[in-house]
Amino acid sequence: MDSCVIPLRHGGLSLVQTTDFFYPLVEDPYMMGRIACANVLSDLYAMGITECDNMLMLLSVSQKMNEKERERAMPLLMQGFRDAAEEGGTSVTGGQTVVNPWIIVGGVASVVCQPNEFIMPDGAIPGDVLVLTKPLGTQVAVNAHQWLDQPEKWNKIKLVVSKEEVKEAYQEAMFSMATLNRTAAGLMHKFQAHAGTDVTGFGLLGHANNLAAQQRNEVSFVIHNLPIIAKMASISKACGNMFNLFQGTSAETSGGLLVCLPREQAAKFCSEMKSQGSGFGGQGAVGGAWIIGIVEKGDRRARIIDKPRIIEVPPRGSQAANQDNSTTSPAPSPNLS
Amino acid sequence: MDSCVIPLRHGGLSLVQTTDFFYPLVEDPYMMGRIACANVLSDLYAMGITECDNMLMLLSVSQKMNEKERERAMPLLMQGFRDAAEEGGTSVTGGQTVVNPWIIVGGVASVVCQPNEFIMPDGAIPGDVLVLTKPLGTQVAVNAHQWLDQPEKWNKIKLVVSKEEVKEAYQEAMFSMATLNRTAAGLMHKFQAHAGTDVTGFGLLGHANNLAAQQRNEVSFVIHNLPIIAKMASISKACGNMFNLFQGTSAETSGGLLVCLPREQAAKFCSEMKSQGSGFGGQGAVGGAWIIGIVEKGDRRARIIDKPRIIEVPPRGSQAANQDNSTTSPAPSPNLS
Repeated sequence: MDSCVIPLRHGGLSLVQTTDFFYPLVEDPYMMGRIACANVLSDLYAMGITECDNMLMLLSVSQKMNEKERERAMPLLMQGFRDAAEEGGTSVTGGQTVVNPWIIVGGVASVVCQPNEFIMPDGAIPGDVLVLTKPLGTQVAVNAHQWLDQPEKWNKIKLVVSKEEVKEAYQEAMFSMATLNRTAAGLMHKFQAHAGTDVTGFGLLGHANNLAAQQRNEVSFVIHNLPIIAKMASISKACGNMFNLFQGTSAETSGGLLVCLPREQAAKFCSEMKSQGSGFGGQGAVGGAWIIGIVEKGDRRARIIDKPRIIEVPPRGSQAANQDNSTTSPAPSPNLS
Repeated sequence: MDSCVIPLRHGGLSLVQTTDFFYPLVEDPYMMGRIACANVLSDLYAMGITECDNMLMLLSVSQKMNEKERERAMPLLMQGFRDAAEEGGTSVTGGQTVVNPWIIVGGVASVVCQPNEFIMPDGAIPGDVLVLTKPLGTQVAVNAHQWLDQPEKWNKIKLVVSKEEVKEAYQEAMFSMATLNRTAAGLMHKFQAHAGTDVTGFGLLGHANNLAAQQRNEVSFVIHNLPIIAKMASISKACGNMFNLFQGTSAETSGGLLVCLPREQAAKFCSEMKSQGSGFGGQGAVGGAWIIGIVEKGDRRARIIDKPRIIEVPPRGSQAANQDNSTTSPAPSPNLS
């Protein structure tokens, strides 16, 4: 499970807790702090938990930074983390900082819950629909952005993408990673989700497999559609599929929730994700959610069909994103008939 | 405070939580795991909390270790951590592991408490007695042990200590660091402790100062006695006091609890620490506790008197340790008259 659930000695309550830490992957320290916090909280949100009682911050300062660099970067990193925590309705009350060769940022999120506050991720049934709440391709976008300064790498992809498009995709990935999955967590209750997880290091298929393996019923997950940040599919193809994006195993950071919803609820979930917005930092950025597959009777595994439909998700703020029914409405359902 | 205390939304309960992580300082990975766990739990014990509902483990594997080294060391490290958690009546249900230039080990300890389960560290009154539950000098012992292989360093101290004594002191420090402060936490309730903290990176005086600064009453802490692992005082002198051991600022790892006790309870606390044993791993190792100072009216600071009495604490298992009234009975009280 994404979080551990510990029954407490007191009145039917449970402690739900998760930790995560990693290395910076975007250049802006403030945004990196937000991403780290969103990534930690996401494990609670994946269980439909919308509240968090406490956060701790885990940090290491790089020994390779000089005093001035530390004084500029670390307060911004911490502020980003704190701001995202505040957006999650919680605060950071402690933590630990060390010196290390590399910068590390992460945290611990804890909440004490009544049983009705969380959704155990094991209730999928045949006929459910799989919904994903953020587009894939964050790893591709972050790497492509680094390649802008590496001619050898850039030459591999310059025929399929412009520098401007890479910068836009990087921005989109950064804002997407910094967006809390809290709205989705709330909607999991409203639309009676049967199970959920979040998509991070193992990629969509990795986490879908984990989730399928935990189901009480004999089900399998079949994925038909892959919503991907615009142009990242082309980049993946141009570099010989090195990210395994179409196989569903490209790592994501602070990815969306993958939710199993009753068939009749999925479209409403997506539509409400759009209208509520899951936007970063209260900036009113649009939210999104896509129907990506179905739950069938099966042996508790997940698979992606041959030639899944690629849904190109344009950057928010772009013309395409501002047209109705482009990124934010649910994609046409896969074989639901 | 050593842990954060978060009032919960449910029935007067509080979430008490702490995290700590650092780099290995002993060679034995199993013992290092135990030390890391004891060090995390110690922040709960310092508040008189004897239970822990959940632990998470934070690990990084060094990228400089080859596959074989990883396979040998990391399972032992994790086992040590788990065994110490089990001794603390809790278990490790989650965590995060990354690859990093250096090995990191640490964790998160969380407990949901009723108000009577923890002792807020702010109730010291003039006349209280200060008790310390582990000897000082772990940093000196660990460094001296490394110097066995560094002739230049070893030459500085070889006139005051034998190799055998350094090895014994290192063993003593390792077992002391791996010992949970849980017994002491329980006795804090039995003997109505007014406040407590644990002694770690800031050294005895650093943590005593922190504790003094938090007191509700206008008090100061005066430290008269320094219980120190045998020979570590001599080593400190021989290397020009480079550790600041006598100033009370030599860093400790997983040090003892510093507890403010009512004057009439302190000797009983020490005597019970001895008879219960605070020993590592149920091996029946002796426990110890020393009266080291008093609480006076003052300006919320701590100080060590000029020429404090050094109490040489012989290694457990040594002849001296097995004689009655050597390490384990409380030292003669400082000016309590």
